[in-house]
Amino acid sequence: MSKEERIPETGLRAGDREGLEIALAEAQAGLLEGGVPIGAALLDSDGRVMGRGHNRRVQDQDPSAHAETDAFRKAGRQPHYRGTTMVTTLSPCWYCSGLVRQFGISRLVVGETRTFHGGHDWLAEHGVEVVVVDDERCVRLMTEFVEQYPELWFEDIGEERP
Amino acid sequence: MSKEERIPETGLRAGDREGLEIALAEAQAGLLEGGVPIGAALLDSDGRVMGRGHNRRVQDQDPSAHAETDAFRKAGRQPHYRGTTMVTTLSPCWYCSGLVRQFGISRLVVGETRTFHGGHDWLAEHGVEVVVVDDERCVRLMTEFVEQYPELWFEDIGEERP
Repeated sequence: MSKEERIPETGLRAGDREGLEIALAEAQAGLLEGGVPIGAALLDSDGRVMGRGHNRRVQDQDPSAHAETDAFRKAGRQPHYRGTTMVTTLSPCWYCSGLVRQFGISRLVVGETRTFHGGHDWLAEHGVEVVVVDDERCVRLMTEFVEQYPELWFEDIGEERP
Repeated sequence: MSKEERIPETGLRAGDREGLEIALAEAQAGLLEGGVPIGAALLDSDGRVMGRGHNRRVQDQDPSAHAETDAFRKAGRQPHYRGTTMVTTLSPCWYCSGLVRQFGISRLVVGETRTFHGGHDWLAEHGVEVVVVDDERCVRLMTEFVEQYPELWFEDIGEERP
């Protein structure tokens, strides 16, 4: 199908599913490295991967290395982000939501919003096209991670453990 | 004066002025490196510098390296950011405003908001204590930079040059 054509009733475009598989593979790689299992991919308007990455808080001792920021960084300098899609395994936190808004990333595809509710509603209110896939694999990955490593998870979102 | 004591009628605390001098020195260093002249410092609740940095888009070819993110990264991993202050030479963009909100940074000291109006109002609405210094040196630095390098500036905020 053409790149602009939508998959009926899902809001997904060609490339989005592949983008989510890449984001999930990045998240799983992060888990194997001992890190926070969140992954992301930045796609161009044709669904091609511009950058992919995962949370590197533990690996690089870098608290700013959230998955979306890592994918954005890997994509390098761009004159603009019109038409691009950020695909992420988890609802983006305020930091990464701010990234999407500031740089005018047009679309956001989110693996799941059940284990964390970040700024995806806010982005939709501000004109970003948001698609929530509700992928069970993404839910399971984060659920198990938060259960096993609650301190690391709460550190990653700047919250104290309840 | 004690660290908690305020300078009358300014909202500034001990350490804020020194923090702004550091942020401005970082911005000026960035300009000399051929980069975007925005600097920042993250201060702890006693006004001590946890991290300092500047925009490194050009220097590192890293579009995520805004000044606030650079200072935050340099501060390393922290269990929380309660009581900290982000000092920046310029109103933070949505990305860096999201950083402040997500990580619960308590205060924001901004050198100036005249050449760019980012998310400082939004942060104030969400409980961050915001102090705008309106420092003429910060205004002059950005005014001259935007005049001389408009394409770099608009790339840095993800906008097309008007």
